[in-house]
Formats: sequence, C-alpha cells, structure tokens
Amino acid sequence: MSSLNISDIQAAAARIQVHTTPVLTSTILNEIAEYQGRARHLLFKCELLQKSGSFKFRGASNAIALLSNEDAQKGVCTHSSGNHAQALALAAKLRGIPAYVVMPSNSPEVKKSAVRGYGAKVIECEPTLQAREDTAAKVIADTGATFIHPFNNFNVMAGQGTMALELLKQAEDQGTPLDGIIVPVGGGGMLSGIATAIRSLNPKVKIFAAEPMNVNDCSLSFVAKDHVSNAVGATSVADGLLTNVGTNTLPIILDKVDGVFTVSEEDIIRTTKLVWTYLKLCIEPSAAVGVSVALHNKEFKAMCDEQNIRNVGVILCGGNVDIVKIAKLFENCEQ
Amino acid sequence: MSSLNISDIQAAAARIQVHTTPVLTSTILNEIAEYQGRARHLLFKCELLQKSGSFKFRGASNAIALLSNEDAQKGVCTHSSGNHAQALALAAKLRGIPAYVVMPSNSPEVKKSAVRGYGAKVIECEPTLQAREDTAAKVIADTGATFIHPFNNFNVMAGQGTMALELLKQAEDQGTPLDGIIVPVGGGGMLSGIATAIRSLNPKVKIFAAEPMNVNDCSLSFVAKDHVSNAVGATSVADGLLTNVGTNTLPIILDKVDGVFTVSEEDIIRTTKLVWTYLKLCIEPSAAVGVSVALHNKEFKAMCDEQNIRNVGVILCGGNVDIVKIAKLFENCEQ
Repeated sequence: MSSLNISDIQAAAARIQVHTTPVLTSTILNEIAEYQGRARHLLFKCELLQKSGSFKFRGASNAIALLSNEDAQKGVCTHSSGNHAQALALAAKLRGIPAYVVMPSNSPEVKKSAVRGYGAKVIECEPTLQAREDTAAKVIADTGATFIHPFNNFNVMAGQGTMALELLKQAEDQGTPLDGIIVPVGGGGMLSGIATAIRSLNPKVKIFAAEPMNVNDCSLSFVAKDHVSNAVGATSVADGLLTNVGTNTLPIILDKVDGVFTVSEEDIIRTTKLVWTYLKLCIEPSAAVGVSVALHNKEFKAMCDEQNIRNVGVILCGGNVDIVKIAKLFENCEQ
Repeated sequence: MSSLNISDIQAAAARIQVHTTPVLTSTILNEIAEYQGRARHLLFKCELLQKSGSFKFRGASNAIALLSNEDAQKGVCTHSSGNHAQALALAAKLRGIPAYVVMPSNSPEVKKSAVRGYGAKVIECEPTLQAREDTAAKVIADTGATFIHPFNNFNVMAGQGTMALELLKQAEDQGTPLDGIIVPVGGGGMLSGIATAIRSLNPKVKIFAAEPMNVNDCSLSFVAKDHVSNAVGATSVADGLLTNVGTNTLPIILDKVDGVFTVSEEDIIRTTKLVWTYLKLCIEPSAAVGVSVALHNKEFKAMCDEQNIRNVGVILCGGNVDIVKIAKLFENCEQ
C-alpha cells in the first residue's frame, strides 16, 4: 500500500483480532477541563487496555496479517525499543512466526524482557541510530524477515486508525457524539490513521494533535508545512513521543489535522497523576499528553469555546511503565 | 426489607443508575494463576471504575432510591470514613438530598475532602466507635436523616449484588462462563449480595471469600459457624476490609459461600503491584485481596484443580487510594 484510505482502515478492522477498548469518563476531569464556566465532556479511549498494553498492537497486527504466508514464515523485524516492539512480538507470536527486535545494548532490562516475554528474539546493538539500522539490515539479510516500521508504514497506520471507528460509535452510543479528538503525536502513525478515518466518516469532527513542548517537531512542521526536526538530544518524560514525524505521515497530518498543541513537562507529570488518581488508570506519560492539552492548555480551551467543541475524545495510548519510577515523579508535583 | 432475595437484586439493577463496569483479562496474570500446568482464566470485574471509585455506589444508590420522598428530603447519614461515605455522598447529591457523614477527627484530610467534594457535610468526632455512634445519633435526632449502614442493610446488599448480574452475563458473552468467583470480604455486604444472586441464577458457580490473614474474622466465623471477632487493634494494608462481618451478612455467608481464603500482607502488596503493572489499573490494596487468592494461595489453586474450576471471576472492588503512598510500598517488594 502506498497511501491510506478509509477502506484500508475498515478492512483492517475486519481483519485484526483486538480488544474493543472501553471509553471512560470522569466528572472531576471534566470539571478541570472547564473553561470560563463552559462545560467540557471528555471521552477517554483506553488503549492502554489493548493487548500488549498499547494501541501499537492494532497496527502491528494489521501489517503482519497482510504478509503472504511465504513472507510471514521468514518472520518480521523492527528496531523499536518501545511499545511497537512488544506489539510486534505479540502479533508475530499469535500468527506463529518469528519476530526479531533490534534494541540498543543500554535499553532497560525490563524492556528487553517484556519483548522476550512475548517470544521475540532480541538482538542487541550499539546505542546509535546507525548501529540499529545496520543491525536490522543484517538480520533481514540473514533471515529474509520483513521490516515493519513503527509508523511510516501504511498498513500500520491503517491498523491504528481502527480505534477511531470504535470511538466514533462508542461516543454515539453514550449519547455524546464527538465534536473533537485529541491524539498524541510522535511519529504520527496513530494520528494519520485516526485523521483519515474521521475526515472520511465524520468531517465535522475537529482533529488535534498533542505533543510535548520539549519535542515539538510536529507543531513546528505544521506551521512550516514542511519537515522540521527536533533539536538533537531533546527529550521528554513522554518517551513514546520523542520521534520526528515520518515522511509518510506528515503529508496526511498537513492535509487533515486542524491544530497541534503542546504541553510542558510539569503539566505532563501532574496530568499523569490526575489520571492515575481519578480515572484509576496507570497510563504512561505519553498518554497524558493529550489529556494535558484538554485540562491545562488555555489556548486549546479558548478555541473549544469559540468553536463550540464540547465532547472531546482523548486517546490514552499506552500503559507500559515502571510504576515505581513514575510514582516517584508524583511526589513533588502539585495538582 | 428484612431479608435478601434475587428479586430484590433484580429490582435494584432496574432501579439504579450505575456504570456497567468492564471485565478485563490478562494473559500474564492467568499464567501466574496456573497451578501444576493447569490453566486458569481470570475475569476481573472492574468496580474501581464504578462511579465514586468503588462498588459501594451500587448499594448506596439503591438504599437512597428506596427512601420515600418525605424521608429522602431529610437526608441520609453514615459514619464510614471510606468508600461507603463517598458513595453515599454522591448518590445523595444525585437525588438532590443532604448527606451527613460522621468522621473521626484524625481521618486523613484527603478522605474528608473527597466526601466534601461530593457535596456531603462532614461532622467530625473523637476517634472512637462510641463517639462515632453518639455523633451519628445526634445528627439523626437533629435532622431526621436516615442512617444507611455500609453493609448490614439489605437494600445496600441488594445494590451490591447487581454487579453479579452483570458479571455472569459478561462472562457468558466473552465465551468464558464462570465456574467460580472470588469476592473480598470486610463487613460482607458485597459478598452477601453476590452470593444471593449467583446461588439463585447459577447454583453451579462456586463462591469464595477472600480476606487478609491479619483480619480473618470471616474465615474464623465460617469455621465456627458463629461470630468470631478480629483481635482488637488488628490491621491490614487492605484498610477497606478491617470490619467484622455483620449480623445480617453472616447468616447469608454461612448459607451460600463455599469457602473463605486468606492472604498475607506481603502477598497483598505484591499483587497490588502486579495489577497496576499488568492490568494497568490503580486498585486499592483491598481489591488485591481477591486477586492474591487466585495468584498466590496454594490451597485455593489445588482446590480449583480438584473441582475443575477454570474460569474465575475476581472482583476489583475499588481504587480510592493515595497513589504515592501505595507506590512507596512497591519499592522493595518482589514480584
């Protein structure tokens, strides 16, 4: 596939075996999201409760399902160290094919063992991008495995888009049809899939991206209408969103997204704590970025009032964290 | 009402406005629950995602809904400091009537403010049971409010039983009908409601209670077939379960429950951590007690094998915790 259409997303939804994740609400978080007395109704799409602990399982499953039997038998390969690696490992296990995951030697042991726990083979390399790519190329040459990019792959994007089909329906069923949606953005695979689905099925719904101020390449690229990279070494507690937006995702984002909003590290941490406390969900900080826009970004809140955006979907993208480490960040943060 | 029947529970289900809480599963927790290679399928009923953060909202709502308009206008009163107080406060707010909650002056500020946050009036008293009862009696004399006991009240029990109606159906719909269910027990209101519902609708399902070893009055009473109280000052990290079983709940428990299992403090803490990590749910330690029986109690696991109990419902009863305080307990616990 070299582009992305609603039919690809609908076909993916019929193809993949995923959890229909619940949509939860919280009166207290709605109250925090209020602006100048105007109510907001937030609908939290709980992708942290997806298989493998994040939305990434949708895209990985779709990409693997679309491999021919001959290709599939040779396995799949990636060089992510995060949620995509775990998702790909589980999706490969469920199809009964090998998965090879290239990870930097300095990755936390907990991440390596999570990937191994799903039955994948971990191949360690030096902690540079060049070493990762070279090592993956060698694995592919040796095994014939298919490389599955975490976001710059249209089959992966189509899989991620399936959550939007669910959420649109769930919001309708709850009597609160979406006026807008906030999607965290790293490489932009999830955002591209969701934006393609929603623009096609319900063009009135506004689509917003959320990203950490520290790694705001999507925001800058959105304004420049061209790729602008993050500063070298830029980092964030939302470690799932450090990536630059992809060559295949940026055009979709420029075409379909209505705005990009950023939040501070402090807001990400206190929002993570709010979600743990009031929604009772152990989200990872990357998943708090969208929530934080809804709760704390004044520009966003004022815009919602202007445009009469009341029911807002917010994607809680994942929950794979070291809970003790994250809880330590909460100790000194104000709510 | 002076007894409890399935029709009371079905009427409660039709009467109260509650969330149908999701039922989640975890491959990793199923693997930990395995015993001698025999698989176990755990179905987690997520009552921590109920309104007010615990199952207690079901019973409080039912008790309040059954008040006459005349009585209701005078309000309701309780002297719980935990989840029942929050639930009663919210249920009263939703009916538009006053709630009076008597709490010891040394209750944590966070608990008082949670109850006040739902609009209830907090009346402080000396931290003794006598002072609590005297203060509640005075409030009732002054206001005409109706006292709503947290568990020894049949309308409350009927409300709690509604979760069993949902769970039986959800387990069927998921293709894994229940063979057994594990219910944490403090005063026994939830256990009585669930046991009454299940014995009536599906008598083959085995019903088990779970309690901390430190406050094992239900276990002792079950063996003695008569009330045995906890030792004075006995305590547990599962602070929702410190209460002795009630005079109205013990007869139901003795009549309908198949067994009572206990777990250590260490097991409760490490199970809480497992649930936060793998189910991504911030349960309170009381909610970990049932899970811990399934994961760590060898006697329970051996019995399940003998009786061919494979699909086991486990109630995650609440999630109202200070997350920083709980996460500190995780720092040194092994998994």
